[in-house]
Amino acid sequence: MSLKEDILEIAKQAKFSSQRLANLSSKIKDEVLSRMAEAIETNARRIKEENCKDVASAREKGLSGALIDRLTLNDKRIRQMADSLRQMARLEDPIGKVDKMWRRPNGLLIGKVIVPLGVIGIIYEARPNVTVDAAVLCLKAGNATILRGGSEAIHSNICLADLLIKVIEEAELPAGSIQLIRTTDRNAVMEMLKLDEYIDVIIPRGGESLIRTVTENSTIPVIKHYKGVCHTYVDEEADLDMAEKIAFNAKVQRPGVCNAMETLLVNEKIAAQFLPGMIKKFQGAGVEVRGDEKTCKIAEGIKPATEEDWQTEYLDLILSVKVVKGIEAAIHHINRYGSHHSDAIVTENLRKSRKFLQEVDSAAVYVNASTRFTDGGEFGLGAEIGISTQKLHARGPMGVCELTSSKFIILGDGQIRE
Amino acid sequence: MSLKEDILEIAKQAKFSSQRLANLSSKIKDEVLSRMAEAIETNARRIKEENCKDVASAREKGLSGALIDRLTLNDKRIRQMADSLRQMARLEDPIGKVDKMWRRPNGLLIGKVIVPLGVIGIIYEARPNVTVDAAVLCLKAGNATILRGGSEAIHSNICLADLLIKVIEEAELPAGSIQLIRTTDRNAVMEMLKLDEYIDVIIPRGGESLIRTVTENSTIPVIKHYKGVCHTYVDEEADLDMAEKIAFNAKVQRPGVCNAMETLLVNEKIAAQFLPGMIKKFQGAGVEVRGDEKTCKIAEGIKPATEEDWQTEYLDLILSVKVVKGIEAAIHHINRYGSHHSDAIVTENLRKSRKFLQEVDSAAVYVNASTRFTDGGEFGLGAEIGISTQKLHARGPMGVCELTSSKFIILGDGQIRE
Repeated sequence: MSLKEDILEIAKQAKFSSQRLANLSSKIKDEVLSRMAEAIETNARRIKEENCKDVASAREKGLSGALIDRLTLNDKRIRQMADSLRQMARLEDPIGKVDKMWRRPNGLLIGKVIVPLGVIGIIYEARPNVTVDAAVLCLKAGNATILRGGSEAIHSNICLADLLIKVIEEAELPAGSIQLIRTTDRNAVMEMLKLDEYIDVIIPRGGESLIRTVTENSTIPVIKHYKGVCHTYVDEEADLDMAEKIAFNAKVQRPGVCNAMETLLVNEKIAAQFLPGMIKKFQGAGVEVRGDEKTCKIAEGIKPATEEDWQTEYLDLILSVKVVKGIEAAIHHINRYGSHHSDAIVTENLRKSRKFLQEVDSAAVYVNASTRFTDGGEFGLGAEIGISTQKLHARGPMGVCELTSSKFIILGDGQIRE
Repeated sequence: MSLKEDILEIAKQAKFSSQRLANLSSKIKDEVLSRMAEAIETNARRIKEENCKDVASAREKGLSGALIDRLTLNDKRIRQMADSLRQMARLEDPIGKVDKMWRRPNGLLIGKVIVPLGVIGIIYEARPNVTVDAAVLCLKAGNATILRGGSEAIHSNICLADLLIKVIEEAELPAGSIQLIRTTDRNAVMEMLKLDEYIDVIIPRGGESLIRTVTENSTIPVIKHYKGVCHTYVDEEADLDMAEKIAFNAKVQRPGVCNAMETLLVNEKIAAQFLPGMIKKFQGAGVEVRGDEKTCKIAEGIKPATEEDWQTEYLDLILSVKVVKGIEAAIHHINRYGSHHSDAIVTENLRKSRKFLQEVDSAAVYVNASTRFTDGGEFGLGAEIGISTQKLHARGPMGVCELTSSKFIILGDGQIRE
């Protein structure tokens, strides 16, 4: 078969399987998830062996340390995959829930029922644990999944997918419930992106260029997971001790993730009091600080920030700092330069906290807390498939409920339209 | 300015305006809507004059009677536009509602707040009333709108948009709240579809080829309003009088719309009893009936249906009829050939009604009622911008609530992530 036929066949299988998956009982789904957890644990050794091939080949190719870290599966990460499967089994099943039901004057009863989306395509890069996390989150919500991981992780992905698929087969679930695209040919993605007849949604997980390519070439709706240029604004009425702890946490606790702070905005009235100590603390933790003109005057060892800094997701121990006139200027800066991901104000003033919550146009808007909490687990949504930075369908952390759609059910006793 | 710069400027204006619109009070929005209703009524004469130009030019070009009907604005339709504006003013404002709020173990309060989508692009064809209906539905939900109507309706659209824009100006709302693309150059749409930086969603309203073109060329998320190939399945345990009334209504009451029935499925056990009278009634109303082999044997004056008939949205007094073995076969036919829009079962059997509701994968699934009820007004959602046939973001009738997004607000007292 040609590549085109191959991918088409996978998509058709997925669509066909999705119809049965949509009608599975919660009990069967949860049993399958538990058995998958076992299969992962029992085969830890095999997983590590296959993963070693990927890691060795990544080293040979001279790929970056950060990428090799994301690629590597050790005992802890394998245990985490199994744990997340067991957690998923315990989560409430969203499917079949009647969201609301109302009666019309003509006696029609109309209800909105939660149903699966259908077929979900996941396109991701080097992290092989996404193979498991994404597939099972989709399965929990009654969806069929087509997985397409990065070529760096191909041995790991095949091994993990095969373990899941074996459980699917043993449980006599439809064969197309979980499928992995096994070729590393990049055209496979292009073929997949045109199959809107069979695939309901594409979720790309990865860098900006991957997401851009997917968006530009897909006729299937895409839920984007773009970058996070997150801010903390320290108001003149902030508790400055609290502000220091929050800003430090938001930048330093894990700088390589999308909900880490990239820009600190400080009210000019407290800048001279707050910034010198704050910046020293950052510098002590190895953070490179880049500041606007005022910041550079107040503190030492600071590089001037350029226009580009304000729009950059460093994903690293680098921070840009700007002194602003007040909350208006802070909100303006965030809405202009930010990526509408996660932004925080630190203040004791109720009116300003309400204004900030209202006017900052981001997926998650914080008062007096670190932006690092933007995460499905931390929000209490259970596992997440990622953090949507778009406004359609799902915004912010996407849990199992965001992988569903709805249908209207209408119960009548002979109503016709006049 | 070039066309490209023109469209870019419109999109930028819209984005800029959307930030203020998102924070308008319900009172101001509703006052503006009422004033728009007045403006439409007061200027009925001018609207009709401009509309006459479009109608005359459509006649000159020899366009179809159906198109000229959709294009024509008379006193009744103008009154309907004004009425729908007043209705909209009375609708509840969805914006700012906190959908739910919960407390995490660490004390964080997390809430989900309804916010506008931002900028909505509406691409539509010959019906000029969409100019008003779409713009004000978007405005009610705090969105800025970019309208792009069909060239046939250009004089009517400019006249209507100018009336709305004048009210916007007088009320000192942002100038880019409602904008109409005034050129009939088709490249304008192509330019618009690439401006994902400024436009949050595109809603195309029109025929299949328009929707296909938009989907294939847009980097902005699209909410599709595809065709309706709707079914009624008459079960062997149906009340056959009720079934006759429902099927007749679904086909004949208004055949040119997407929620009208195109295919009647009849259980083989009652086919010989039910179909002859039913088909005679259809034929009496001028319906051309096309049947499968069994139907052709049972009743007279029937053309054989082809494979293509089962997938065709006739939008006309034509009906395909098929005799099926039972509910399994009916559901299979609907999920295979239908367009996942609106489908009904007529039965007195509870188990079968539940099975049908569960397994038919359509936006609206009916028991014992006509599919013609799939409509925002009939469902009690207030006005609608259309009926989405996709699964993402909105499925089925889209009211004002479907033109919103959400954001998470997080209230802390110094929480940082460990």
